[in-house]
Amino acid sequence: MTRILSLKELDIQVKKKKSFLCIGLDTDMNKLPTQYVRNALAVVNFNRQIIDATNDLCVAYKLNTAFYEAMGAKGWDCLKQTIELIPKDILIIADAKRGDIGNTSAMYAKAFFEDLDVHAITLSPYMGKDSVSPYYEYEGKWTIMLGLTSNEGAKDFQMQKMKSGKHLYEEVLETSKDWGNEKNTMFVVGATRVDALKGIREILPEHFLLVPGVGSQGGDMEEVIKAGATEEGRLLINASRSILYADDGKSFAAKAREEAMQLKLSMDIGFTK
Amino acid sequence: MTRILSLKELDIQVKKKKSFLCIGLDTDMNKLPTQYVRNALAVVNFNRQIIDATNDLCVAYKLNTAFYEAMGAKGWDCLKQTIELIPKDILIIADAKRGDIGNTSAMYAKAFFEDLDVHAITLSPYMGKDSVSPYYEYEGKWTIMLGLTSNEGAKDFQMQKMKSGKHLYEEVLETSKDWGNEKNTMFVVGATRVDALKGIREILPEHFLLVPGVGSQGGDMEEVIKAGATEEGRLLINASRSILYADDGKSFAAKAREEAMQLKLSMDIGFTK
Repeated sequence: MTRILSLKELDIQVKKKKSFLCIGLDTDMNKLPTQYVRNALAVVNFNRQIIDATNDLCVAYKLNTAFYEAMGAKGWDCLKQTIELIPKDILIIADAKRGDIGNTSAMYAKAFFEDLDVHAITLSPYMGKDSVSPYYEYEGKWTIMLGLTSNEGAKDFQMQKMKSGKHLYEEVLETSKDWGNEKNTMFVVGATRVDALKGIREILPEHFLLVPGVGSQGGDMEEVIKAGATEEGRLLINASRSILYADDGKSFAAKAREEAMQLKLSMDIGFTK
Repeated sequence: MTRILSLKELDIQVKKKKSFLCIGLDTDMNKLPTQYVRNALAVVNFNRQIIDATNDLCVAYKLNTAFYEAMGAKGWDCLKQTIELIPKDILIIADAKRGDIGNTSAMYAKAFFEDLDVHAITLSPYMGKDSVSPYYEYEGKWTIMLGLTSNEGAKDFQMQKMKSGKHLYEEVLETSKDWGNEKNTMFVVGATRVDALKGIREILPEHFLLVPGVGSQGGDMEEVIKAGATEEGRLLINASRSILYADDGKSFAAKAREEAMQLKLSMDIGFTK
């Protein structure tokens, strides 16, 4: 366990780069630029080019484990090799959305915080406190809890009303924020839920929020920053497909950089205060 | 995609073997019998002995992915090799509790239903219908949705009351049961929740229920069967640690068989009707 980035170090990176950008390395072998063969090694090489072209513009990379698991054991190696390519001052998030009973969570924590040694992992909090507590045993590592997700299905349960009059997602945020603190916990809030973001900021005035859904899923950058940024920033705004697949030919890395640059520049409104 | 077991075939297996037993291959390298070295190959060899000693007594094996992921890429191979050792009339469940947006779920479905080719995967339904629908594209495969879990933390959210007066887990069951049907969907209900099991059976009169928590977690076999078994059976009762680690020396496989046999015999009350 060697990779650690503190809240203070993250705040500094965000301000230094004037960027909330988190790039999602949801690399799909079948969507690689046409010059690549379709195998796990090609995925690592593609990721390397993307990382080389964008690492001065972003403060985090998020690796969606599903895309690597779909390649089997080779995918797991590919995940590990990609992690090794990321500069050490950039936050590495395993987007795994795990959630299980305590003795199982302890094994997941081992997989992600020891074997892969990422800084942070996304978790589903619905099995309750004891399903999350094993991750907190790893001092310096981050858990990122699902708050309110960006997909249509968020309406099925997360946005339903509880007996207390609150929405389920509000109950989840209010309860789970006390399992850790702003120095070891972040929350996922979809960019398509801007209406809810202001209320969520009242519940979580200090926590980093990881916001997916700008770009392919239709969330609006300016609205997200207005509703979600604090004095310190405390936002990670994720884009994946719009950057990775900005071009499907030889200039994919340059186009990915252009797209990342545009996104970063559109974040400037968060740094004018 | 070659491994398929239909509801009818499962019903036949349960009746033929007079068994609801699902054996959880949550194999922890550090808990292997003392004669084993601690590596991934040893885990496969241990699993082989457990499977050889118990496959006439159980109707399902459940592989908890966390225990394999904790070994990295080798763990994924180990998962695949273990799956190959299981006789073809026995249900293979990947206990993965995945849950993510649609395009990510499609990748998990590929990982589990194509690459690993298991019959069934456990899923967290809290991200809603579109997070689960990609799994239903695989005809003949099973999804197993978290209903009410066996751990203490189930009280944090699952057992909270909704505005409708129902518990959250009841809302989840009532909504998600219509995403599929009893021929492609099962639900997880913890053995420590017997009080709730009767009500859950009223919501789900036809579905298979996967019941963990008998044994190490303290659930009572007779009560689970009385409250949960239907005319057709439709129960999978899981035991993991009590079987795998029945003995830590050379006779571990024989002791595992003894423990599995005792559990199977204690299920006889479900087959006297």
